[in-house]
Amino acid sequence: MESEQLFNRKGYYRNSYNSIASASSDEELLDGAGVVMDFHTSEDDNLLDGDATSPGSNYAMSNGGGVMSSTTHLLDFLEEPIPGVGTYDDFHTIDWVREKCKDRERHRKINAKKKESAWEFTKSLYDAWSGWLVVTLTGLASGALAGLIDIAADWLNDIKEGVCLNAMWFNHEQCCWGSNETTFAERDKCPQWKSWAGLILGQEEGPGSYIMNYFMYIYWALSFAFLAVLLVKVFAPYACGSGIPEIKTILSGFIIRGYLGKWTLLIKTVTLVLAVASGLSLGKEGPLVHVACCCGNIFSYLFPKYSKNEAKKREVLSAASAAGVSVAFGAPIGGVLFSLEEVSYYFPLKTLWRSFFAALVAAFVLRSINPFGNSRLVLFYVEYHTPWYLFELIPFILLGVFGGLWGAFFIKANIAWCRRRKSTRFGKYPILEVIFVAAITAVVAFPNPYTRQNTSELIKELFTDCGPLESSQLCQYRSQMNGSKAFVDASPNKPAGPGVYAAIWQLCLALIFKIIMTIFTFGLKVPAGLFIPSMAIGAIAGRIVGIAVEQLAYYHHDWLVFREWCEVGTDCITPGLYAMVGAAACLGGVTRMTVSLVVIVFELTGGLEYIVPLMAAVMTSKWVGDAFGREGIYESHIRLNGYPFLDAKEEFTHTTLAREVMRPRRSDPPLAVLTQDDLTVEELQGIINETSYNGFPVIVSKESQRLVGFALRRDITIAIENARRKQEGILLTSRVYFTQHAPTLPADSPRPLKLRSILDMSPFTVTDHTPMEIVVDIFRKLGLRQCLVTHNGRLLGIITKKDILRHMAQMANQDPDNIMFN
Amino acid sequence: MESEQLFNRKGYYRNSYNSIASASSDEELLDGAGVVMDFHTSEDDNLLDGDATSPGSNYAMSNGGGVMSSTTHLLDFLEEPIPGVGTYDDFHTIDWVREKCKDRERHRKINAKKKESAWEFTKSLYDAWSGWLVVTLTGLASGALAGLIDIAADWLNDIKEGVCLNAMWFNHEQCCWGSNETTFAERDKCPQWKSWAGLILGQEEGPGSYIMNYFMYIYWALSFAFLAVLLVKVFAPYACGSGIPEIKTILSGFIIRGYLGKWTLLIKTVTLVLAVASGLSLGKEGPLVHVACCCGNIFSYLFPKYSKNEAKKREVLSAASAAGVSVAFGAPIGGVLFSLEEVSYYFPLKTLWRSFFAALVAAFVLRSINPFGNSRLVLFYVEYHTPWYLFELIPFILLGVFGGLWGAFFIKANIAWCRRRKSTRFGKYPILEVIFVAAITAVVAFPNPYTRQNTSELIKELFTDCGPLESSQLCQYRSQMNGSKAFVDASPNKPAGPGVYAAIWQLCLALIFKIIMTIFTFGLKVPAGLFIPSMAIGAIAGRIVGIAVEQLAYYHHDWLVFREWCEVGTDCITPGLYAMVGAAACLGGVTRMTVSLVVIVFELTGGLEYIVPLMAAVMTSKWVGDAFGREGIYESHIRLNGYPFLDAKEEFTHTTLAREVMRPRRSDPPLAVLTQDDLTVEELQGIINETSYNGFPVIVSKESQRLVGFALRRDITIAIENARRKQEGILLTSRVYFTQHAPTLPADSPRPLKLRSILDMSPFTVTDHTPMEIVVDIFRKLGLRQCLVTHNGRLLGIITKKDILRHMAQMANQDPDNIMFN
Repeated sequence: MESEQLFNRKGYYRNSYNSIASASSDEELLDGAGVVMDFHTSEDDNLLDGDATSPGSNYAMSNGGGVMSSTTHLLDFLEEPIPGVGTYDDFHTIDWVREKCKDRERHRKINAKKKESAWEFTKSLYDAWSGWLVVTLTGLASGALAGLIDIAADWLNDIKEGVCLNAMWFNHEQCCWGSNETTFAERDKCPQWKSWAGLILGQEEGPGSYIMNYFMYIYWALSFAFLAVLLVKVFAPYACGSGIPEIKTILSGFIIRGYLGKWTLLIKTVTLVLAVASGLSLGKEGPLVHVACCCGNIFSYLFPKYSKNEAKKREVLSAASAAGVSVAFGAPIGGVLFSLEEVSYYFPLKTLWRSFFAALVAAFVLRSINPFGNSRLVLFYVEYHTPWYLFELIPFILLGVFGGLWGAFFIKANIAWCRRRKSTRFGKYPILEVIFVAAITAVVAFPNPYTRQNTSELIKELFTDCGPLESSQLCQYRSQMNGSKAFVDASPNKPAGPGVYAAIWQLCLALIFKIIMTIFTFGLKVPAGLFIPSMAIGAIAGRIVGIAVEQLAYYHHDWLVFREWCEVGTDCITPGLYAMVGAAACLGGVTRMTVSLVVIVFELTGGLEYIVPLMAAVMTSKWVGDAFGREGIYESHIRLNGYPFLDAKEEFTHTTLAREVMRPRRSDPPLAVLTQDDLTVEELQGIINETSYNGFPVIVSKESQRLVGFALRRDITIAIENARRKQEGILLTSRVYFTQHAPTLPADSPRPLKLRSILDMSPFTVTDHTPMEIVVDIFRKLGLRQCLVTHNGRLLGIITKKDILRHMAQMANQDPDNIMFN
Repeated sequence: MESEQLFNRKGYYRNSYNSIASASSDEELLDGAGVVMDFHTSEDDNLLDGDATSPGSNYAMSNGGGVMSSTTHLLDFLEEPIPGVGTYDDFHTIDWVREKCKDRERHRKINAKKKESAWEFTKSLYDAWSGWLVVTLTGLASGALAGLIDIAADWLNDIKEGVCLNAMWFNHEQCCWGSNETTFAERDKCPQWKSWAGLILGQEEGPGSYIMNYFMYIYWALSFAFLAVLLVKVFAPYACGSGIPEIKTILSGFIIRGYLGKWTLLIKTVTLVLAVASGLSLGKEGPLVHVACCCGNIFSYLFPKYSKNEAKKREVLSAASAAGVSVAFGAPIGGVLFSLEEVSYYFPLKTLWRSFFAALVAAFVLRSINPFGNSRLVLFYVEYHTPWYLFELIPFILLGVFGGLWGAFFIKANIAWCRRRKSTRFGKYPILEVIFVAAITAVVAFPNPYTRQNTSELIKELFTDCGPLESSQLCQYRSQMNGSKAFVDASPNKPAGPGVYAAIWQLCLALIFKIIMTIFTFGLKVPAGLFIPSMAIGAIAGRIVGIAVEQLAYYHHDWLVFREWCEVGTDCITPGLYAMVGAAACLGGVTRMTVSLVVIVFELTGGLEYIVPLMAAVMTSKWVGDAFGREGIYESHIRLNGYPFLDAKEEFTHTTLAREVMRPRRSDPPLAVLTQDDLTVEELQGIINETSYNGFPVIVSKESQRLVGFALRRDITIAIENARRKQEGILLTSRVYFTQHAPTLPADSPRPLKLRSILDMSPFTVTDHTPMEIVVDIFRKLGLRQCLVTHNGRLLGIITKKDILRHMAQMANQDPDNIMFN
């Protein structure tokens, strides 16, 4: 008993040193590129050298640590904590079961200790509260960063057009706040704000100043784009793109070191501002999710509960992504549902609650910063006051069809372009590519007011209904007011004036421009979100349809469909609502989100009233999109990059059996196995050197093939190394045994080596007749890395996650070699 | 090929006749009490007679049907569809894996057929759309029924007080709509509405008429209560209670026949109205979930996809419960989250989307019915206009503590009382009990205006802020207005008048009354929801605290905490907000809901503003409640009734191993197993007769103990029966074999019987060293019924869901024999 306590205190149990070990090596998680390894087919034979940490699957330690080792066998030969045990290599898949067992073990230990002293009790309280602390911190940081990005992007965006003479750091709107020009039409013009032409040439009007402004616009756009891509290229290559495909993969249990690190956070924040300001057809909403996840990852390092456990860390990341969407769209509930529906893999109820909390905290911080000066979280918050009518469902569904078509087209075109970029020399000059795209965008965008302005502002203008105070070109209807302004809210439908017709032409051009540029922009080496460009495309299409329906109703109010509810002089059609429905439909077509998208847009409008049009459009868009290909843009990019992502949404519907998928195949060499008590150290090392597998099943004997357990390559090498260093009498001819008691040996044989403690005695097994649909279900739901296949109690083969992904790709007639990591 | 097609058309494959068979027996699902059976320890040896359908676990059929049987072995001896195969017995647990496989098989079959003809294609379209159709129908029906119940309960409730002379079917409010009395104080008094005293005695005022009204109130309350309990007792015993514990259990994969049937629906709808009108301390919100689930279940019978598959049917039920909460609280998003957080077990994303749709449809139908005349879905929708201040978090958190204490106290007291009712002769007289409780409620409730009125109306009054138009006693502040009514919305804080003090006393009495009566009411044999009484208790406590803080701020506005933000003449404290926070806290304490509760209340207030107070209170309430016992009221009632519910929220934190939980225990007789090829029919029947297990592992031989598969008792008996009837030469001495090929037998032996087709060749196995936390995880996530335990490839024992539940009860120091069903 005495000695057991001693061991216990010094942390000689397997579990104890696991925790210590992982602490030291987890701190390196933020840097380092790491070696790409492959579980079952890796060519890398250097594993034995120990310079690469190998992925482990030893959840058996919870036997070993919890019950078995405390009563029977202690790890008598591994006397020092071994760095790297319990952590994973870069680009490897984690073992959810093991991670969860590790956490429960940690929890048990803290619970057992907490009555010992006040200090331990405090520590246990800290541990219990750390989940809430980390999501609070994440929410605070995400909200603050989102506010900062909003303000900075606004300011930098206006720099392209001019400068505030009073105070350089004011954007156009802030500059003119103090101005005397109070009419709405002129509110953007004030003497303090000088366009570049006004500043350099001294005159605001005329063709010369137009060209000057044009030139300065292009100059700034190119400068911002160049700076953004340079920073990304030099400091943090992971900062490019939207980040959501990678976050989905990471949340499903994959390790990409540095993807959520401090450098990525810093560079992504800065370059996001630059990229948005450069006028490229991209948004900041997707990257905000990445930024929030970086915050979550960084804060999780303050809490050992999260930093040392990859599964627990993913709970924080799920909450962080909810916070990210919450600040991106001002929709806390939508953010939680986005995290649940779109990005998360393992989403227990506790995470739901914490995600909600993080989303709320982030939203409140952003609202206190108030970046848009409208006490709303987003620029394009709207409130409509007129109801919709049943007949309008037809145009709404048409918008849904448009959204689905756009989504399918965009995904196909963008993936084709990205594949071309990957495979040809286009991809070798990312800086040039960005500058080229930015130059075209700027040159084409400037002449058209709808493409020149900030995309968020464009969306806001398209969403907003025409009231009497609205000065936009889109609202230049021919006045029919009889002098009375009784209904300020509900301005009746009117015939369109020349301004509206001009606006429609410009909007059509803007639509074509946005569609083309977005395809080439998403995938550039700058931070680039898809939400805003997609919404803009949908909003433009929607507004055009809305105005068309409105004019139709005005000129043909005697048609049957309009007669009942759309009299002359009533306000029956709201073109802004069409814009919103179109935006939702296009976003739905691209991302294939459903509930979360409707809830996000619902939170933007603040009324249950418009959920039915939204649902009709989003559902139509999803079905139309799915008809052309079931994958959303994020899944397509995951597949493009070959990440091992086992989608929980996709059903496996084939009738194959486990034996058809398992290795070894009929033509392969037999499975490399270890026998439990008749190998020597030399033979064992031989097997390890000859194969590249990351783990070996242990069987009773070659004759019986009965499965005993599973041992990881890395654990075996470490154990042998240690034993030869620390234990006397371990020679190359020493017998290795995994059993409880040493085998009976000849008298002159050297001291045997006991390796039972590194044996996972509860490997997952299925029979060879198990349908693959069940196997896939098990892998998904339990988060396995590998599973052994037996027949009548005899070991037959092994199935890894990669085998399953390859098999699924094969069944879907895709290239199975696309799956690159394990 | 010819014969295979023939077989195929006639449905001779195992899967085909399964579907046909289950069709015929599923129609019986709505009636019949069924025999309570126990998987592993049942004493019922009559199973062989075939008069009880036995639960099946033959998901192997998807091998058998999908790949194996279509290529190799046909079921050559089972020529007729056997009724009952593929269905479950009453009070038995379903096998999720099998059900899901069955559905995928069905889906594959439809997909394969759909190109054959236009009719098949139409059928496949119908199949694809049936999910949306069934949730639409469910939403429509739930919304309509909720509206009906609301209107009927309102009318019946007013009948207790008087009658409308113009039109009997008008309630008090509708009766007085046409009245000339337009002042708000007098809006309830109109000549058309006669109190009973006015009608019978001819005078409205005076002690005589008070006593007359009192008498009539009690008379009607008792009549309604008697009628309600009588209907429940005679026609549908399952209609009593809130139904949520049973729905949780059903959704987790348990069969309770008739619980969601048409009789339950009809009687529950009628008696719910009566129970609410009787004035008992109960609400209609919980039972509305039950009503919605009944609708979902009944409509699922229209669609073979759902009626024939217990797992798919539960998807509809999840959506239905979302619709139920949606109409109960007018909170579609809250309803979906309630379904996700509180009741559902298996909640794939498709269900999320459909739940949302069902919830929306139901909400829209209810709003078109407009039962409250305020175009809101609930009576107590409110909008506040004043912000809250940081200091107010202290009283909010105190309300949370109160809510947690109330929840813990209520659960303990209610469970103790229900246990006493179950175990003593109290439970023998449910009708008397209801009448007794109703009488006490009516007698005590009448004199106090706050208990006399409808609980929903009480909540509405407590939630509503005092505006200048408010006539309630709670708003009788001493006026300090200076004649100006500049701020209509924000009436400044004022000193309380005598009306407020009187109201506070009455509220205190009402609080005590509600607390006591609710404990005795929940569990009566009438439909009874908990939401409204809990919210009422919280709202009373909250309003009292709110008024106290308000007065404190008025009289001590120079205190440091008030000085900054609560000047005289400003409106800084909203007592209605306190009522709402208190209501949420109390409901949270009782149910331990978190996110869904906050979202439901958020949807009631229509503003993000008040989410932080709500969250603070709900979180506090949950933590305080959890300190006294982690179970909410629904889990407690599940445990009280001994349902086999494996809670996904509760973590299993013990360190036991599978071998400590599995049967047989050390002292038990050895596991009953079948050998694969050396039993005779007689020996097999002997094993079946001697044991009561519902299934038997099949092993290679007694010596090797290597596992081949798992065969269900029911399948074996049916197969033997059929073979002896249909196949020539099968005698009692015939050899039974489960292998692919017949064993070599002596020349004179009778024809052997091949039973491979009923063998599940992919049973789930774990090793004896597997920690129970992993086993519990597997059972939860995959929805298993049983799992075999092996050691080094040899079969060792079996773990059933019931074994796990017993073990968990044992580890929690509870009575393991409490778990009654399997």
